[in-house]
Amino acid sequence: MHSELPPDHQHIDNQMVKMEVNLDDVSGEWLGYVIDLLFEQGANDVFYTPIYMKKNRPAILLQLLCSTKALPKMEEILFKETTTLGVRYYPLTVHRLERRYKIVTTEWGPVSVKEGILSGQVVQKSPEFEDCKKIAQHFNVPLKKVYEQVWKEVDLDR
Amino acid sequence: MHSELPPDHQHIDNQMVKMEVNLDDVSGEWLGYVIDLLFEQGANDVFYTPIYMKKNRPAILLQLLCSTKALPKMEEILFKETTTLGVRYYPLTVHRLERRYKIVTTEWGPVSVKEGILSGQVVQKSPEFEDCKKIAQHFNVPLKKVYEQVWKEVDLDR
Amino acid sequence: MHSELPPDHQHIDNQMVKMEVNLDDVSGEWLGYVIDLLFEQGANDVFYTPIYMKKNRPAILLQLLCSTKALPKMEEILFKETTTLGVRYYPLTVHRLERRYKIVTTEWGPVSVKEGILSGQVVQKSPEFEDCKKIAQHFNVPLKKVYEQVWKEVDLDR
Amino acid sequence: MHSELPPDHQHIDNQMVKMEVNLDDVSGEWLGYVIDLLFEQGANDVFYTPIYMKKNRPAILLQLLCSTKALPKMEEILFKETTTLGVRYYPLTVHRLERRYKIVTTEWGPVSVKEGILSGQVVQKSPEFEDCKKIAQHFNVPLKKVYEQVWKEVDLDR
Amino acid sequence: MHSELPPDHQHIDNQMVKMEVNLDDVSGEWLGYVIDLLFEQGANDVFYTPIYMKKNRPAILLQLLCSTKALPKMEEILFKETTTLGVRYYPLTVHRLERRYKIVTTEWGPVSVKEGILSGQVVQKSPEFEDCKKIAQHFNVPLKKVYEQVWKEVDLDR
Amino acid sequence: MHSELPPDHQHIDNQMVKMEVNLDDVSGEWLGYVIDLLFEQGANDVFYTPIYMKKNRPAILLQLLCSTKALPKMEEILFKETTTLGVRYYPLTVHRLERRYKIVTTEWGPVSVKEGILSGQVVQKSPEFEDCKKIAQHFNVPLKKVYEQVWKEVDLDR
Repeated sequence: MHSELPPDHQHIDNQMVKMEVNLDDVSGEWLGYVIDLLFEQGANDVFYTPIYMKKNRPAILLQLLCSTKALPKMEEILFKETTTLGVRYYPLTVHRLERRYKIVTTEWGPVSVKEGILSGQVVQKSPEFEDCKKIAQHFNVPLKKVYEQVWKEVDLDR
Repeated sequence: MHSELPPDHQHIDNQMVKMEVNLDDVSGEWLGYVIDLLFEQGANDVFYTPIYMKKNRPAILLQLLCSTKALPKMEEILFKETTTLGVRYYPLTVHRLERRYKIVTTEWGPVSVKEGILSGQVVQKSPEFEDCKKIAQHFNVPLKKVYEQVWKEVDLDR
Repeated sequence: MHSELPPDHQHIDNQMVKMEVNLDDVSGEWLGYVIDLLFEQGANDVFYTPIYMKKNRPAILLQLLCSTKALPKMEEILFKETTTLGVRYYPLTVHRLERRYKIVTTEWGPVSVKEGILSGQVVQKSPEFEDCKKIAQHFNVPLKKVYEQVWKEVDLDR
Repeated sequence: MHSELPPDHQHIDNQMVKMEVNLDDVSGEWLGYVIDLLFEQGANDVFYTPIYMKKNRPAILLQLLCSTKALPKMEEILFKETTTLGVRYYPLTVHRLERRYKIVTTEWGPVSVKEGILSGQVVQKSPEFEDCKKIAQHFNVPLKKVYEQVWKEVDLDR
Repeated sequence: MHSELPPDHQHIDNQMVKMEVNLDDVSGEWLGYVIDLLFEQGANDVFYTPIYMKKNRPAILLQLLCSTKALPKMEEILFKETTTLGVRYYPLTVHRLERRYKIVTTEWGPVSVKEGILSGQVVQKSPEFEDCKKIAQHFNVPLKKVYEQVWKEVDLDR
Repeated sequence: MHSELPPDHQHIDNQMVKMEVNLDDVSGEWLGYVIDLLFEQGANDVFYTPIYMKKNRPAILLQLLCSTKALPKMEEILFKETTTLGVRYYPLTVHRLERRYKIVTTEWGPVSVKEGILSGQVVQKSPEFEDCKKIAQHFNVPLKKVYEQVWKEVDLDR
């Protein structure tokens, strides 16, 4: 059950929720596992922030973005996989750009470049990390060189 | 005036508020003092996040969770004890598990284990830190050994 | 187009918004530039928090406070100057103190001290950083000595 | 070319080096890639710390531990895969415990528990994360439950 | 067995060691306990830094400063109270100022001010936190007001 | 008295020192000032790390890199401008790449690109931030677009 991808056109999404959990009695080992699980089960994003809690405790703030619909599933995972006794959440709005993909050709093969479009104007051009990583590993070249070549070939005229 | 504890049954609490203050002109010494004071005066939770503000300033984001009812008291403390000129806040919802305590017997004496129950299923079993700490200090054993023995004795059948 | 300053009397501001963006593919160099630009264009505050995202990525959470009116301008800058494909936001309330300025005289010249007043009681007295910095640089004295002298001269009787 | 594992007996290792690089113009995406590469090529440990550099730049301090022998290889990767123009390093000493493995049986199968031994006394008992993770994924149980059962079965008599 | 205080005259101390441990499988609860224990047993300073380790693990770098003489005791605590299998260390030099105490009188009673003296010149004047805290708690005044009054009364003529 | 720039050829520098100071009673405002001052007076690098110290204090670790020759000057500034009573330091080695500059032409004018050369091979190509920033500000274009055009024009053949 992967997260449904948001639509590709520019839109305002009012059905999003941010969840938060403070964790001072769970190890980093477990948290490295939980982040993947939450993504697999439908989270749009999950991230950790280092915080300091009472009694001199270094701790972690887990933040998670998901649709209202996914809230119960996410809560269940957080309660079962972490040590929290409470989960808090509040609604938020997301403004997403239109997304479009172009292909750029490098000496090692093609790479997708994701474009972000704001009211008809291309404002983002982002080489797909996984494409670049595969080339770097397969051809044993620095990842940096792959990106350099993609940036060299990307079309700036529009 | 300590924080009223939330009820022990599983519930959704809609009367909670998160407060936030950015602090770039207060020392860590003061902040170590303020966190205890806020807990004593009724905060449900308080924590610090390291942030970077303008003009190359390392700073602290103070976040505080409390009931709507406690908001004025918390604001007063923040204005009097920190250097802020503004406090921001927004409502949030907290989903809390049912809580129940069991006693586990170690060679050094009893330790409470807090259970968290989600829709009738025990999903959390958390040894009480203060019980374990007292044993570690009194018997001069590593805290880790106390926890290990508690985990050994905890009842997993349910 | 600088941010309109909030009024000087104590008030509750219900027209504020917090914006957030997660950034894992933008360099610190750019972020140091963007923070100044956002302030110039009307942000009330901007700050960075270190976060950890999926795939072992150290990243930055950009948070921005502005009035509802400034939201579209801020979004445009975030989309054009950072690499994000989505911006999220939610409303919040700000309780601001009454502000007033006093002048304190040091051996190197005058320094403004900003006072914050809560329901008629002065709770903050904050030497203006830029005044102190100018003195420190012009007279080649440690900034700390300038502050010490300001604190020495500040009027504690109210 | 994986890192040679340190010997299993308690020892003082004087042939270790810490390397450090400050990075303010590399993205989190790349750093998530580089950490794996450095481990594969022989680093004993690699970790990232959030730092703040000049010009309001949030940045990352990369720290790497390796043997003196692996230093040139690590330098080459850092220069080729990150954007740094300089790498710094200094020698350090590592005191390592004797290591030994025991097997614990859970309802889902066996799990290794790594023991750390200080001058003949077992001071660490650490369930192997990868074993527990495999069970959690294969049997679709919370990772927390796997650890709980391992802790229940671990032998505390020494 | 508290740490022996360093001498009060300005000096260069060449008998100091920094110890470091990376911790990704220990909870914040335990770390809040360990820091106090290490101070009690002779550490000159202990502090925690948030780090990111492999496999997406938020973790903690524990750093500890002590004299060469205290090294074995500190190692023993780290091995027994944390989960580490290795402790690393390296020598460093500390340049300490001459220290001297003065008494300042406030309306609530006396407060010590620690002076730091560099080659005969007073460069630090630091109100003793514990003195100010006791006054704040006993007289129920903001800690900030206590410091303000101390700074008002401190003698700037040297 | 600016820092003497290190030589442009690839070399191993054995005359470097790292200085460290823990700060829990100094504000972010002051630290934003001190970092600039340290650079002006000869530091090769200065950076801040968020740490947690005893008594629940969020604090800052200041780290500074300089030549052995600059050590006394740096110590003096740290003692006079911060609140520390002790400064610690230890020697380290820096391996620096050969550096060379090339000019790239954009539609808005020339931009320097710094090259880093490891044993004769160009491994770094870094657009000069200050050049790009000036163009972005003068022509009112996103900084990101300036970098994109520089990357498009940079010479990858070698």
